[in-house]
Amino acid sequence: MNIVIKNGVVITMDSTKSIFEKGMVLIENDTITYAGKEITSLIPQDAKIIDAENGIIMPGMINTHTHIGMSLFRTLADDTSDRLKKYLFPLEGKFVTPELVYWASLYSLIEMIEGGTTTIADMYYFEDKVADAAIKAGIRGILGESILNFPAPDTKAPYGGFAYTEKFLKSYSNHPLITPALAPHAPYSLDFENLKKTANLAEEWDIPILSHLAEMPFEMKQIAEEYGMSPVELYSETGLLSTRMTAAHCIYVDDKDMNLLKTSGTGVAHNVAANLKGGKGVSPALKMFDMGIPIGIGTDGPMSGNTMDLVNLLGYTAKIHKMDNKDRTVMPPQKVVEMATIGGARALHIEDKTGTLEKGKKADVIIVSTESTVMFPIYDYYSALVYCASPRDVDTVIINGELIMENREIKTYSKKETRAEAEKIVAKIKKGLKDF
Amino acid sequence: MNIVIKNGVVITMDSTKSIFEKGMVLIENDTITYAGKEITSLIPQDAKIIDAENGIIMPGMINTHTHIGMSLFRTLADDTSDRLKKYLFPLEGKFVTPELVYWASLYSLIEMIEGGTTTIADMYYFEDKVADAAIKAGIRGILGESILNFPAPDTKAPYGGFAYTEKFLKSYSNHPLITPALAPHAPYSLDFENLKKTANLAEEWDIPILSHLAEMPFEMKQIAEEYGMSPVELYSETGLLSTRMTAAHCIYVDDKDMNLLKTSGTGVAHNVAANLKGGKGVSPALKMFDMGIPIGIGTDGPMSGNTMDLVNLLGYTAKIHKMDNKDRTVMPPQKVVEMATIGGARALHIEDKTGTLEKGKKADVIIVSTESTVMFPIYDYYSALVYCASPRDVDTVIINGELIMENREIKTYSKKETRAEAEKIVAKIKKGLKDF
Repeated sequence: MNIVIKNGVVITMDSTKSIFEKGMVLIENDTITYAGKEITSLIPQDAKIIDAENGIIMPGMINTHTHIGMSLFRTLADDTSDRLKKYLFPLEGKFVTPELVYWASLYSLIEMIEGGTTTIADMYYFEDKVADAAIKAGIRGILGESILNFPAPDTKAPYGGFAYTEKFLKSYSNHPLITPALAPHAPYSLDFENLKKTANLAEEWDIPILSHLAEMPFEMKQIAEEYGMSPVELYSETGLLSTRMTAAHCIYVDDKDMNLLKTSGTGVAHNVAANLKGGKGVSPALKMFDMGIPIGIGTDGPMSGNTMDLVNLLGYTAKIHKMDNKDRTVMPPQKVVEMATIGGARALHIEDKTGTLEKGKKADVIIVSTESTVMFPIYDYYSALVYCASPRDVDTVIINGELIMENREIKTYSKKETRAEAEKIVAKIKKGLKDF
Repeated sequence: MNIVIKNGVVITMDSTKSIFEKGMVLIENDTITYAGKEITSLIPQDAKIIDAENGIIMPGMINTHTHIGMSLFRTLADDTSDRLKKYLFPLEGKFVTPELVYWASLYSLIEMIEGGTTTIADMYYFEDKVADAAIKAGIRGILGESILNFPAPDTKAPYGGFAYTEKFLKSYSNHPLITPALAPHAPYSLDFENLKKTANLAEEWDIPILSHLAEMPFEMKQIAEEYGMSPVELYSETGLLSTRMTAAHCIYVDDKDMNLLKTSGTGVAHNVAANLKGGKGVSPALKMFDMGIPIGIGTDGPMSGNTMDLVNLLGYTAKIHKMDNKDRTVMPPQKVVEMATIGGARALHIEDKTGTLEKGKKADVIIVSTESTVMFPIYDYYSALVYCASPRDVDTVIINGELIMENREIKTYSKKETRAEAEKIVAKIKKGLKDF
C-alpha cells in the first residue's frame, strides 16, 4: 500500500534537522520514498491520503530497553528496598508462564503504540511469546531471551537461556519486524566463561546483544571484588562491547568506562525515569551523547518505569540533565527528540533502517496531534514535544509501512479483548499473592 | 444541588488515610456531607447521581504556585540562560495587557480543570483579570497582584502593586471562590521597607501572602551581600514569615531556614519540575514535609513547567526525591498524593476548607478514571495515581459543589471559543516577536 501524510509539520531528524512547516511524507510499501515540503504532483493516484490536521509528523520513537512481559505486575511493591532479589525474582518464579508473557506483552504493546513507539528492544523470559505479541501488534522488535546463572521461569537449568535463544533464533530469523538477540542478564548474573560464550555466539550467529550494565550499587561492589575491575571493563574483557551490544543503564561509568563504550561502538539505553524511581543516580547520558556514544532512551519494564511510552520520558530527559548540570541551556529539546528517535536507532545499531524521515528508510512514522490543550501555543516544535506533549497526543502510528494506529484506534488487534484476557490473569495473580 | 458520587474507590486523604473500595461521596450545596462506604439509604431522592465507573474518587488537587496569565508565551525561549531578566521581564513589558491576561488565564484553566486541579494560588499582573477568568471557570483561587520595585505591565510606578492590590481586594472580598492576596514578588525585587510594609498590610487587611523565596542562585548572592543573611532570614526579619505566607520554591534553604519556616507556620510551594527545567537544584521538600512544614506541589507558570496539571508532577515528586536521597523507599506515593491535596491546602492555610474528602469540607472532588491503558493493573491505588496516571485520566471535576467538568467536558465555558480568542492573541505575539 502507498500512503501519503500531508497537512502537517514534518520533523525529519535527519543530519541537518530539516523541518518542513507544510510538509509531506510519501510511503511506498515498507519504505519512505519522500519526506519534504508538500508537492502535490508527487502523490501517487492510488495512495491512501492521511491528513495530519496541522499535527507534527515525525519518526516513530525507539524504546531501547524494556521488559514488556511484566505489565501485569505493575504497581506491585513499587517502593520495596532490595526489590530485585527479595521480590522480583521470586515473584517471577511463581507467576511467569508463557501465557502470562504473551498477554502481558500484547497489553504493553497497546501502551507502546498509543505512545508513538515503533521499535522496542526487549529482554525477558519466553521471548518467543514476546515475539508472537510483537508480530500480532505489528511493532519492530529486537528481542532477547534472558540468560542467567540460576533457574528462571523458562528453564530449570542455569544458563538455559542459551538453548532457548538458539531455538528462538531459528524460528524468527528473516522476519521483517523481529530480530532475535542474545541477552546476557547482567555482569553479576553470568560468570566470566559464559559472558565470553555470549560474545562468541553473537559473532557466530551474527545477532545483536542486549544486557544490563553498570546499573546497581551492589553490582559495582560485587564486580570490583570478584574481578578487580568495573562492569564495563569486564564486558570489554569478555568481548561483549561492540557494535552488536546495547547496554542498558550505564549509570555508574567513569571516563575510562565511557571511552571503552565509545571506542567499541557500544550502544547505550538511558532509562531516565526508571533510574530515578529506583533511587539510583543520574547517568552521564548527556556526556555520552556529546562524546558520540550511540545513546537512546528506554522505559525499562513497567514495574520500573512505570509507564511505557517515550513521550513522558522526553520531559524527564531534558529536565534531569539540566538539574544535574545546574544549567538550563543543556540538553535542549532537539537533542532529546534526537535521542528518542535516531539516537535510539544508533543505540540499537539499526540507524540505516529507521530513526529518521528520509528517503530509503523503513516507514516508521507517527503523527502527534496539536489539538490538545497543552499543545498550544507552539513557538518551537521541539519544545512542544518535549515539555508539553502527552503520549495521548499521538494520533497515528505507521510501522514498516503498515498503518498500526489511526486516530488513536489500534488496527492490528483488539484492545478490549486483550484487556479482558489480561484481567483474568491479574485476578489469578491477586489470589496467588495472598500466600506470597 | 445535591450530588452523589458512587461506584468508585474513595481515597479520602483524611488523617487516617481511609480508603473505601466501594465508596460514596455525598455533596449538599457546596459541602461534603458524607464520604465513606456506599450506603444507599443515605442518598437523597433529588440528588444527581454520578457513576464513577470503578474510577478513583479523591480530593481535587491544589496547585500552590502558578502564573496562569503566561500560557500564551509557552514554548518561547525555554532554554535561554538568565531568562528572567534578559527575556521574561522585557517580553512581559511588551506584550502583557489585561486582555492577554484574561484569555491566557481562561486558556490555562482549561488545562488545570482537565488535570483535576480545584484550587490555584496565582501571582501575576492584572490579577483582577485572573480573578474574572477563575470565576468564569469556577475554580477556587488565592490570587495576588505582583508587587515589584520597578515598573510592570500593570503600573508605571515602582510598587504600584500595593494600590492595585487594595482596589482588587475591595472588588473581590467575600467571593466564595476568590481570596485576594498580597504578592511581594521576591526578596530581590522589593526593598526592606516595602517587604515590611507588605507584612503589615497583610495583617491590616487580614489576607494571605504569596511570594517567591530562595529560588535563584543570584538571589542567594544578592541577599547575602545586601543584608548579610539568607532570603528566608530576611523574610523572617521583615515579618513576612507567618501562617499567612506561602513561599514558592525554597530550594536553597538550610536547617536554620527550615526551622524559621516551621516555627512561623509558613507554607511552602514545591515546584518540582519547573525547578529541574530551570537547572536549579532539588529543594529539600521531603525533609520539610517530614519536619511538619506545610508543603504542597506547584506547577509554576507555563513558561517554567511547562504543563499546568498536578498529575504529571506526582511522578516527578516521587522520583526526584528517591534519586536525591538515593533510596527508592522514600517519598512513597501516599505521601505524594498527600502533598498534592491536603498538603497543598495546608501550604495555602485553607486546610479547614478543602484538601480531603471529609464531612464539612467544601466539595472539591475529582474522579480519576481507571479505563485507560496505563491505569491497569492496580494493586495499589496511590502507586497507580503517582506512577501511572496521566492528567487525561481525570474524568470529572467538582469545585465548591458545582459540577465543572463531566466526562471530560468543561461545563462552565467554551473551550473552543477560548482557544479561538487565544489564537488571535498568539498571532499578534508572533508578529511582534519579529522585532523583539
